[in-house]
Amino acid sequence: MTRIGLRGASALALALTVAVTPVLARDELKTLQADPNQWVMPLGNYASTRYSELSQINSSNVANLRVAWSFSTGVLRGHEGGPLVIGNMMYLHTPFPNKVFALDLSKDGAIAWQYEPKQDSKTIGVMCCDTVNRGVAYADGKIFLHQADTSVVALDAKTGKVVWSAVDGDPGKGETGTGAPAVVGNLVLIGNSGGEYGVRGALSAYDITTGKRVWRAFSQGPDSDTLMDPKKTTSMGKPVGKDSGMAGWKGDAWKLGGGTTWGWTSYDPETDLIYYGSGNPGTWNPAQRPGDNRWSMTIWARDAKTGMAKWVYQMTPHDEWDYDGVNEMILANQKVNGKDRKVLVHFDRNGFGYTLDRVTGELLVAEKYDPAVNWASSIDKKTGLPVRVKAYSTEANGEDVVSKDICPAALGSKDQQPAAYSPKTGLFYIPGNHVCMNYEPTKVAYVAGSPYVGANLTMFPPKGESNLGRFAAWDAGTGKVVWEVKEPFSVWSGVLATAGNVAFYGTMEGYLKAVDATTGKELYKFKTPSGIIGNVNTYTYNGKQYVAVLSGVGGWAAIGMAAGLTGDQEGLGAVGAYRSLSQYTNLGGTLTVFELPGGAQVASK
Amino acid sequence: MTRIGLRGASALALALTVAVTPVLARDELKTLQADPNQWVMPLGNYASTRYSELSQINSSNVANLRVAWSFSTGVLRGHEGGPLVIGNMMYLHTPFPNKVFALDLSKDGAIAWQYEPKQDSKTIGVMCCDTVNRGVAYADGKIFLHQADTSVVALDAKTGKVVWSAVDGDPGKGETGTGAPAVVGNLVLIGNSGGEYGVRGALSAYDITTGKRVWRAFSQGPDSDTLMDPKKTTSMGKPVGKDSGMAGWKGDAWKLGGGTTWGWTSYDPETDLIYYGSGNPGTWNPAQRPGDNRWSMTIWARDAKTGMAKWVYQMTPHDEWDYDGVNEMILANQKVNGKDRKVLVHFDRNGFGYTLDRVTGELLVAEKYDPAVNWASSIDKKTGLPVRVKAYSTEANGEDVVSKDICPAALGSKDQQPAAYSPKTGLFYIPGNHVCMNYEPTKVAYVAGSPYVGANLTMFPPKGESNLGRFAAWDAGTGKVVWEVKEPFSVWSGVLATAGNVAFYGTMEGYLKAVDATTGKELYKFKTPSGIIGNVNTYTYNGKQYVAVLSGVGGWAAIGMAAGLTGDQEGLGAVGAYRSLSQYTNLGGTLTVFELPGGAQVASK
Repeated sequence: MTRIGLRGASALALALTVAVTPVLARDELKTLQADPNQWVMPLGNYASTRYSELSQINSSNVANLRVAWSFSTGVLRGHEGGPLVIGNMMYLHTPFPNKVFALDLSKDGAIAWQYEPKQDSKTIGVMCCDTVNRGVAYADGKIFLHQADTSVVALDAKTGKVVWSAVDGDPGKGETGTGAPAVVGNLVLIGNSGGEYGVRGALSAYDITTGKRVWRAFSQGPDSDTLMDPKKTTSMGKPVGKDSGMAGWKGDAWKLGGGTTWGWTSYDPETDLIYYGSGNPGTWNPAQRPGDNRWSMTIWARDAKTGMAKWVYQMTPHDEWDYDGVNEMILANQKVNGKDRKVLVHFDRNGFGYTLDRVTGELLVAEKYDPAVNWASSIDKKTGLPVRVKAYSTEANGEDVVSKDICPAALGSKDQQPAAYSPKTGLFYIPGNHVCMNYEPTKVAYVAGSPYVGANLTMFPPKGESNLGRFAAWDAGTGKVVWEVKEPFSVWSGVLATAGNVAFYGTMEGYLKAVDATTGKELYKFKTPSGIIGNVNTYTYNGKQYVAVLSGVGGWAAIGMAAGLTGDQEGLGAVGAYRSLSQYTNLGGTLTVFELPGGAQVASK
Repeated sequence: MTRIGLRGASALALALTVAVTPVLARDELKTLQADPNQWVMPLGNYASTRYSELSQINSSNVANLRVAWSFSTGVLRGHEGGPLVIGNMMYLHTPFPNKVFALDLSKDGAIAWQYEPKQDSKTIGVMCCDTVNRGVAYADGKIFLHQADTSVVALDAKTGKVVWSAVDGDPGKGETGTGAPAVVGNLVLIGNSGGEYGVRGALSAYDITTGKRVWRAFSQGPDSDTLMDPKKTTSMGKPVGKDSGMAGWKGDAWKLGGGTTWGWTSYDPETDLIYYGSGNPGTWNPAQRPGDNRWSMTIWARDAKTGMAKWVYQMTPHDEWDYDGVNEMILANQKVNGKDRKVLVHFDRNGFGYTLDRVTGELLVAEKYDPAVNWASSIDKKTGLPVRVKAYSTEANGEDVVSKDICPAALGSKDQQPAAYSPKTGLFYIPGNHVCMNYEPTKVAYVAGSPYVGANLTMFPPKGESNLGRFAAWDAGTGKVVWEVKEPFSVWSGVLATAGNVAFYGTMEGYLKAVDATTGKELYKFKTPSGIIGNVNTYTYNGKQYVAVLSGVGGWAAIGMAAGLTGDQEGLGAVGAYRSLSQYTNLGGTLTVFELPGGAQVASK
């Protein structure tokens, strides 16, 4: 088990010595993210494809996979996200208290350093959907951590010492941190959480060297807050107009307007644009916030340096179901209607898979990726608006009335767990929920730091079905499901697709599964210590390919287990549907690393 | 991974339906403990050999071992003990809060039921050496749990429902439960913990059907308490005399006399005798308790039905070092001085390996099993007394004086982690510490429920060495070490020896290791999620052999990590020596189950 990490060690030396100036740091990440031997950002690369060129482990031999080593994090609640690998070091995070471990791959995963921030445990009380954290970011010899209490901390990647820290928000007002940072150029981008507490969403950019905030772009408010240009920023091809982030609201309601930004950020180096989504408007009671509630539920394209919005697309104006728009934006080239397009593909909580021209924001494809979706019959491609089905309109049915059998449930046909795209198969791999809900909007008053939800929910599988989850392959050029695998529980794990023609994902019972990327046929499964809601990553060390995943059940879907809740409507309605999960698994964070039997093999790249 | 458990299922049916009367229950366990396909008691069988006749996994193929599945317990502190396997069910326990899981092997380890007692968390405050629990016992369709708060609970093995519960002691006085129950006939035997709180040791027997206490045998006090016959109970071949359990004490000191019984109990069906050891006398300051302190530090042979003592052997009269006598008693047949003897072999905390005639209590062999031992030069075979070395006498050096470089340290050359005996090699396999100490006795006053320790300690490796642990093979007929493997930290894991000529043990960094049972050569290692202080077990399911072990670092040696202690003298002196352990592993309880690649194989038995 002694491994001599020459390649790894030299890569680390490179990573830690090169790029001390912002310009070089920008180049460094561009290079590193293209190296399949490392896993340098949560979604694998700037395009967020979660695709690896590695193919030592492939559809012919993945059945022989075995566990190489494992590591307990010592934290019990839901473990979202996954480890980074830079050179011979692996960087691993945990849910609250947000520990960070640097594991030395040249020493069998021994702990080179660990960091545990001091955070007020009261922060846990304002985290709606488990005390999750979706990972750390790397750049310029530093590891960036976004803590639950909103602190942004830069740690020396060699020593774990704090280089700088900044405060992004105020947990006293319900502002918390769960999303992974993203580094673009010399900026680390930080979203916020707290859409169930009347928090106003914002994406903020901090200088990676100094920690100074360079820009902040709110989801609502005047143009000076949203960083929109009334003439140049477009929506469905047209200028958004002056202060569009206030126009969609009655009075000052935008100030409590949600639209938080706790998902993922993608980046296109060609155009220097970043892409991310904003979440639900506050409250969940649509009657309390007349208007389009701009720019909640929106895909944003912004200039990476200035934060200025280039285009927006609001998927679910005046949301009535909590269909947050924060899911990842996957950047790819796709043939749409016979033309090669530079696209952005997004699987929204609302159950539609969107393909947009990522340069212009033009809506190309918008189709249901789960046939259960019933709140809208389709998306009008001209207006961009969903064609709503009145029976499932929680506003039409009214306050204090239970709207029944709405699909998907609030946690969406897919939540934050990131999909993957394989340029080899041309398919997108969707880790999906298959859950419907009853939804009762209720009046709620705003009190800073208190829940500002305004709805009672219960969740359950679609009528006549029993599976709460599905893993589906999607053609984004035509908007069609190619194949699907049913799962008893939501697939709440991020997918990995590889050049070995394998797609990996985890299940809430705890299985890591590998399927044939072309057919969906199951090739391998292994039961890890706990339910998997983490993202599967891959890397090489010493020329050999490894696959790594965090288990540790929790997250919104398993909030009942994670927080010990019991009533059907607790956990924002998730508890009831997932109650039987406790018959399969138990809390506890563990990293499991997989390999093929035998020693180091010739690297595929 | 679908396993059809015909053999397993029928064996369970047998286990759950046979033996509803005490007489049958006695027969049932006698039969089950001889079946290598199951693991029905913590130490594998009544003789406590931790030896398995299984040989599918053997020294030729163990290098191919891989993880079959894993299971997180959801509890963070030290996981001692190991799982039971009866039919197709596995029963797993945790440290405080003492959860019990029934895992269905026919359903890939899904949770058939779980039980979590309600216990006052204040109990944790009177547990000296982590909140450990060493396992559950099985008999008569019931699982027996000994909780931290001293409750003894019988659970229906099929449903997890409480059949009965009994209270063994009072945590308010420092009485706690950490030891595994043992079932002999229709009695479940329960020892107690709390030697650092002035608790008086006792072994108590409860009826497995009703939970009624049948007898209780104290370690000190009048004959009516100790269940000794002044004429028939012998020590070194002579009758002990009247009220011997009071004679070794000044005044009423025996009432706070320690001698707790938190180790293991063995049983010889031929003679109907049970064997166990008693712990340190209270306090750790020898000057405060003049006398032999009978019967602390004693090996006990008692009649299983009545509890009456047949013979005793006090290893360390008037202890000056906290060398508890609770370690397991291994029953075997050995050639000693050319004669075949029915022996009891015991590796005491004091560093001597004892071989006694288990029928008569005759002392046959007593030699150092760790060459570092220096507190005594030898054991006088005629008197049974250790020949003490004055320089290391903490009493001779006096109160408030630091006695230096005493070997072993208080946690012994071996602690409770059970050894194994292979009749195939004739060797005993010792999971050992290799630790010395400085020891300063101090005056202490008794306050019920408060620590009654009376000494300050620091621990470290023997001079000129750096390894704190060793794994050694021992010839109990001659009292000689045959080979040893050095380990950086104490080997705090129970050993498994098999007919496959393999010995398995775990390390505190988290490795499961397999060595050649004849030579000690390492054949396999795997890094589990956390440090291993659990005991390695084996069983078959559906004709295939599995090896199972709990990881989850803690216990006295790792109390610094488990309880977050930092000062060198904290944790009764263990913290300092083991501080670097946190560079290798982290808290978190996980079961890891190992197998050979491929499907079910022909069972060896």
